[in-house]
Amino acid sequence: MTRLVVIGGDAAGMSGASQARRRRGPDDLDIVAFERGNFTSYSACGIPYWIGGEVTDRDQLIARRPETFREDYDIAVHLRSEVVAIEPDERTVRVRDLAAGGERDEPYDELLIATGAVPYRPDLPGIDAAGIHGVQTLDDGQRILEDLGGGCSQAVVVGGGYIGLEMAEAMVQRGIHVHLVDRGTHPMRRALDPDMGAMVAREVEALGVELHLGTGVLGFDVGDDGRVVNVATEDGDIHADVVILGIGNAPNVELARDAGLAVGDAGGVVTDRRQRTPTPGIWAAGDCAEVFHRVSRRWMAIALGTIANKQGRVAGINLGGGYATFPGVVGTAVTKVCGTEVARTGLGQQEACDVGFEVVTETVRSTTRAGYFPGAKHLTMKVVAEKRTGRLLGAQIVGEEGAAKRIDVFATALWNEMTVDDLLNVDLSYAPPFSPVWDPVLIAARKSWQAVEDDLRANP
Amino acid sequence: MTRLVVIGGDAAGMSGASQARRRRGPDDLDIVAFERGNFTSYSACGIPYWIGGEVTDRDQLIARRPETFREDYDIAVHLRSEVVAIEPDERTVRVRDLAAGGERDEPYDELLIATGAVPYRPDLPGIDAAGIHGVQTLDDGQRILEDLGGGCSQAVVVGGGYIGLEMAEAMVQRGIHVHLVDRGTHPMRRALDPDMGAMVAREVEALGVELHLGTGVLGFDVGDDGRVVNVATEDGDIHADVVILGIGNAPNVELARDAGLAVGDAGGVVTDRRQRTPTPGIWAAGDCAEVFHRVSRRWMAIALGTIANKQGRVAGINLGGGYATFPGVVGTAVTKVCGTEVARTGLGQQEACDVGFEVVTETVRSTTRAGYFPGAKHLTMKVVAEKRTGRLLGAQIVGEEGAAKRIDVFATALWNEMTVDDLLNVDLSYAPPFSPVWDPVLIAARKSWQAVEDDLRANP
Repeated sequence: MTRLVVIGGDAAGMSGASQARRRRGPDDLDIVAFERGNFTSYSACGIPYWIGGEVTDRDQLIARRPETFREDYDIAVHLRSEVVAIEPDERTVRVRDLAAGGERDEPYDELLIATGAVPYRPDLPGIDAAGIHGVQTLDDGQRILEDLGGGCSQAVVVGGGYIGLEMAEAMVQRGIHVHLVDRGTHPMRRALDPDMGAMVAREVEALGVELHLGTGVLGFDVGDDGRVVNVATEDGDIHADVVILGIGNAPNVELARDAGLAVGDAGGVVTDRRQRTPTPGIWAAGDCAEVFHRVSRRWMAIALGTIANKQGRVAGINLGGGYATFPGVVGTAVTKVCGTEVARTGLGQQEACDVGFEVVTETVRSTTRAGYFPGAKHLTMKVVAEKRTGRLLGAQIVGEEGAAKRIDVFATALWNEMTVDDLLNVDLSYAPPFSPVWDPVLIAARKSWQAVEDDLRANP
Repeated sequence: MTRLVVIGGDAAGMSGASQARRRRGPDDLDIVAFERGNFTSYSACGIPYWIGGEVTDRDQLIARRPETFREDYDIAVHLRSEVVAIEPDERTVRVRDLAAGGERDEPYDELLIATGAVPYRPDLPGIDAAGIHGVQTLDDGQRILEDLGGGCSQAVVVGGGYIGLEMAEAMVQRGIHVHLVDRGTHPMRRALDPDMGAMVAREVEALGVELHLGTGVLGFDVGDDGRVVNVATEDGDIHADVVILGIGNAPNVELARDAGLAVGDAGGVVTDRRQRTPTPGIWAAGDCAEVFHRVSRRWMAIALGTIANKQGRVAGINLGGGYATFPGVVGTAVTKVCGTEVARTGLGQQEACDVGFEVVTETVRSTTRAGYFPGAKHLTMKVVAEKRTGRLLGAQIVGEEGAAKRIDVFATALWNEMTVDDLLNVDLSYAPPFSPVWDPVLIAARKSWQAVEDDLRANP
């Protein structure tokens, strides 16, 4: 009997455990998962919608409970059980029981590390005050909701990435006045080029959020009760009943690093494409592990549920005796700011240059349906392509209803290393309620190819 | 000075003319287009929505008028001018002036045939009665509207393809009682497998349309005024004030065939991938020309505005001295029946078998958003994959809002000859308002790969 121990009970860990079980029965493989929190397999991405009230019940965000794993999969899940050390030589993990207290060693034959990511908390005065929250776990969500309920009238969001924007909108929906402070010149600066980001900035302001761009946070003033009262910024003090940190996160690799596992330049646990670490018997998947970017050809740290689920699946198939590889990502992401949909994939203009590509870019404005069809909405697409070859390198979309999911066509094209002149001919669907006869994706590809050819003529 | 003559003033012809002009100025290339109807560059696909009242003004369906071509592109367009003969040896066309009468010869150096398709009219008693309409041109639409306005209370649609269904819905919206007669066991039988077609049948009936499936039409009874009064079917007579023919169309190749041009097995003008016919100086594009299907590897006749626009563009670039090829299609199409979206790409189950593939299929039911997110709608996806290799061969989608455009991911995957196990890992976008964490496309690919593996184990 082999024993598989899983550290972390969310997407990657439990996908891995389930897949391993599909291939090896309980008489062959014993599976035990340790989760330091109170929940398994929940949708962290859904937290802003729970805060905003669109999702009314926390439990809706839970895909599978420990009972389900126990009864349907014969997987033992221990909640409130934190793995505090890994001993690769002994093949044991040290588990701390956060509820009852005490620690114990648990043996493993195979170990899957799926410890996720931790929200980045800048080392600033007052950062540990009550009322300053990351948005990572359902417990975080519960605490934020409690804070917002108790007479909160003004909140400050630090960081204008996906989570920052989603949380800003959620709090506006609860009638709270929101300031958003971001060091960059535009929101979502890691996802969007400045021209596209400027469009998002306008939407955020239209929502009633006070934007403080190009503004660093200096610290937090703490009241006598230990709660945050002010955010000190380069733009002056902003009163805050609640502060949300949306400044990104980092792979949670402390445990792995302490155990001597390799950590890569991007800060995640190093694995091969089967999700094996170089340390015998140890696997890693999800936000804690690095992921190969198929366009930049670099290993990166990206915390996304989609990747975690896929990497967990791959690890689980391999742990179950099958063969699977995770072929990497192309950097796709999507979000919604009020009625505006925002999506991106591949490399942005500057990112592409940083990696060493010479690029042309093209931005087109089109509609989500035939122009004459009722309900046609606007969208703007920006495409980044390689000079001379026309290889597609990235795309960004900002638009109204029906705009964002079009990024998936670009993602699939990037996956296949298509050129924009190949993409412009792809047989995409058309009917007046769904797109113009040239879908905006094809228009953007066509104009990008034109730009590549124009550049070639100008610089032969 | 070279003279380019274009036969047909809609998508393919005018795309070709415009592209040729972009590359060669009016001092170098003289461009003349002859159109037998009253309009240029209009959206035939929009006609059902004009009939249904969603598009209120015919002129909204016209993308570009003759004046625009004349003034902005230096392209002479002659309306009501039918080309009745091509003389390849003389390099002339014979043009009949349908307005003023008379015929004349016009010389060409290069000729682009873009004569479109003609609705199929079965050779049945009474077929030429007034009140029996194809749906092809704006003039058709105008005549249908006039008929529907004059005390029409019941209509019969013959044929349950895209146009038949769209017209049925349009007439229901005008308060007309509609019967739909189709020889097949389910609507859209050329687009969908029976299991998926059955879902569409239910939607059509829910709309209030009386469906007569498995029912052939025997003829039409004509009243004293020369108008249709009854449709005689295998299921009995059905009273009809108006009849709509939606039984498909065929490439309009009479002119080309008479001139000795090659017509292929699929019934369209034969061209190479640059849209050249084997006859010197003659090009063809759009519904009248055949198109290469990248999955079945066969040449086909498919009348779709998307293809016409792309082929026209390719012909125009080549006519303008550039170099472009049309790499074919994968058989993508989409429509909307009331709130239900229907899409398909690639080969259906039977089609794939007919071409010689051995297949597995998988059908999954999922949601358009995270299951817990308000407004999540249902969709059903069917995937056809090749046994053993897992190569994606086709996909069909029936679902509610946000379902159909997902077909574009399958189309892009087919374009690149992806396998379902490669597709299941593609980095598609995810956020709760847009999809479950595993987008339905990925779920369908994952389950199809499972089916391929299961089949392989069962039949090693």
